[in-house]
Amino acid sequence: MAQGSIHFKRLKGSYIFPIIEKKLEELKKDFPAAHVINMGIGDTSLPLAPSVAKAISSAVEEMSLTSYGYGPSAGYAFLREAVAKNEYANLEITPEEIFISDGINTDITGILDLFAPSCSIAIPTPSYPAYLNASILAGKENIHFMPCTEKTGFVPIPPDHPCDIIYLCSPHNPTGVAMDKERLLQFVEYAKKNHSIILFDNAYGAFVQSKNVPNSIFEIPGADKVCLEFRSFSKSAGFTGLRCSYLALPKKVQTIIENEPHSLHLLWDKRQSIRFNGVSYPIQKGASSCYLPEGKKETGLQVKHYMTLAKKLKDGLKKAGQTCFGGEDSPYIWWKTPDGLSSWEFFDLLLEKCQLLAIPGPGFGEGGEGYIRLSAFSTEEKTEKALERLQKLV
Amino acid sequence: MAQGSIHFKRLKGSYIFPIIEKKLEELKKDFPAAHVINMGIGDTSLPLAPSVAKAISSAVEEMSLTSYGYGPSAGYAFLREAVAKNEYANLEITPEEIFISDGINTDITGILDLFAPSCSIAIPTPSYPAYLNASILAGKENIHFMPCTEKTGFVPIPPDHPCDIIYLCSPHNPTGVAMDKERLLQFVEYAKKNHSIILFDNAYGAFVQSKNVPNSIFEIPGADKVCLEFRSFSKSAGFTGLRCSYLALPKKVQTIIENEPHSLHLLWDKRQSIRFNGVSYPIQKGASSCYLPEGKKETGLQVKHYMTLAKKLKDGLKKAGQTCFGGEDSPYIWWKTPDGLSSWEFFDLLLEKCQLLAIPGPGFGEGGEGYIRLSAFSTEEKTEKALERLQKLV
Repeated sequence: MAQGSIHFKRLKGSYIFPIIEKKLEELKKDFPAAHVINMGIGDTSLPLAPSVAKAISSAVEEMSLTSYGYGPSAGYAFLREAVAKNEYANLEITPEEIFISDGINTDITGILDLFAPSCSIAIPTPSYPAYLNASILAGKENIHFMPCTEKTGFVPIPPDHPCDIIYLCSPHNPTGVAMDKERLLQFVEYAKKNHSIILFDNAYGAFVQSKNVPNSIFEIPGADKVCLEFRSFSKSAGFTGLRCSYLALPKKVQTIIENEPHSLHLLWDKRQSIRFNGVSYPIQKGASSCYLPEGKKETGLQVKHYMTLAKKLKDGLKKAGQTCFGGEDSPYIWWKTPDGLSSWEFFDLLLEKCQLLAIPGPGFGEGGEGYIRLSAFSTEEKTEKALERLQKLV
Repeated sequence: MAQGSIHFKRLKGSYIFPIIEKKLEELKKDFPAAHVINMGIGDTSLPLAPSVAKAISSAVEEMSLTSYGYGPSAGYAFLREAVAKNEYANLEITPEEIFISDGINTDITGILDLFAPSCSIAIPTPSYPAYLNASILAGKENIHFMPCTEKTGFVPIPPDHPCDIIYLCSPHNPTGVAMDKERLLQFVEYAKKNHSIILFDNAYGAFVQSKNVPNSIFEIPGADKVCLEFRSFSKSAGFTGLRCSYLALPKKVQTIIENEPHSLHLLWDKRQSIRFNGVSYPIQKGASSCYLPEGKKETGLQVKHYMTLAKKLKDGLKKAGQTCFGGEDSPYIWWKTPDGLSSWEFFDLLLEKCQLLAIPGPGFGEGGEGYIRLSAFSTEEKTEKALERLQKLV
């Protein structure tokens, strides 16, 4: 009898998106669909940069002339080299330490395959739900939550006891706040002391504006012994629908199996060669074009567009007397619900009175209660219209 | 202390490809690289079909005009519908039962996440190495091997005791032989009797020529209650470098968790929504173009090309008095080593005397000893040259 995995029973049933979808359907009975403004979604809203589109099409043309078979499971050398050179220029991360993948989501959940089920895991709350759900599916039972509250600056602080694996995301999703050098150093020191591994989700790194926020976790001394960094072309270059990301995994990072040290780099390489056949060739070509002068310019303008909208949105809310955070190093704004409303109450209010869709904080875990997330992945027109409606309400 | 997964220690170290690579390097000291003929690789050798390339480029152009964000993790409806309609026309498999993925390899290893570690697994030997390696990494300790010998017709027969999960591949890799309806029915009956689940790898289905070999496992009565079918555009449409495949998972297939039945379809849907963000939009557009009249015609010609070469290769070998199997329903030929040579001895002989690269049978597990695999994923010129050299040798 093929028994199913018992871990599925531990998954929390409260998916918020079907609930949101249902409320939206009801609203559409009274308003035309176009009238509703979606400021919830964490997804790029600009078309693909022209030079990226050109690079992909040209790779497809190549493939229609000469045979291109399986690529290397860790990615083509041209992309691994471009990433190492452009993202880790002064940081001693080599192309061999870069693994190309189809998305941070795939890697940051798949990485748990490398660890014993007995490992304890620290997860920020609120945070991207896949950290927790993948930990549960991987049979990790010892889970510690790190609250991201006003008191902690909306990013986590290191636990007061040893945890083996630490999920971090900075700039943090959903609070939109980035960890500064000092806070990151605290975590690296904690990991060194406790022989922990930090899984550093840097999906929003391209949006950082603050000077005391590093571009990479590897700018922190000692991080290359205890950290893995997950980055993506999704948000920085509008690749969400194309699927391309990478993992920087320094060879120095070690784990222990039966009292012997093992290089995590080698384990991941083995795991990938067994479970993954690499990313689509034309997509990798598109990704590498982001590092050419035209690509840099075009994707840079996209980032600027989103950050201009984030500023506009935040300034508008503050002017209306609202309390909100983030929006300076990422396109997310973490809005404290007014008048002590619960997240869902405020969500309903925004939907009914302004026809504006946000994401209630508890969608990112219990630590999100009392807040909602607004996203600046939008257009200028929609952002302005949203502000108009909000100003009437508050 | 972050402990690593102990399962990595159970992986067999004998990767054959680095050994082959080394031998090839040595050979290249005496011969120019172009002189060596690679008949080992299980990878398409023709350029991408023109209409597929056109569909991908046109999707990329769309993306450069309008924003395309995250697609559904299970795949776009247009592709799920096209697969259901074209591959499962009379088989009651609905679009909802089709999950689009980036490769059979990803799915056929990832599917083990759904099952308890205590499940016993039956794996053919020889077979595609990922079945065994992924089972080991998933902590499955109770592994039973099903020999594919001359006596069993180079495909497996059902075990004589209950196994929970059965890996099957037909047409089988590496023997190149397909299972007929009768043999498949034996497995389906076995699975029904023992409440087992069959993981049916149909990667080479497009190459089937024999009348008594079904196009899909779901042509076998009762299969939709106990079988999952993994199929791909890789070999049929030259998608190896593009990455697109699908899993047909009927809603009727059930597993048991804590004495309660659970739909495997629901578990996979949950698992995918947590661990996977979908396949690249333009690649899905390319895949769906294979079902349009032009795409069907072009990819059909590619299949015909490979099968013509397989026939030529097999006929040539037989004429030279050699014993070989397969090559009729797949582009692989399973060549019995002459004069009682071991697989590696014969491999060395072919490499030294004919500068011809094959894959030694043990690369696919112990059951492969005494054979080598030749692949017809090649060109007419190379195939003829290979035959010339072989005929001089034997």
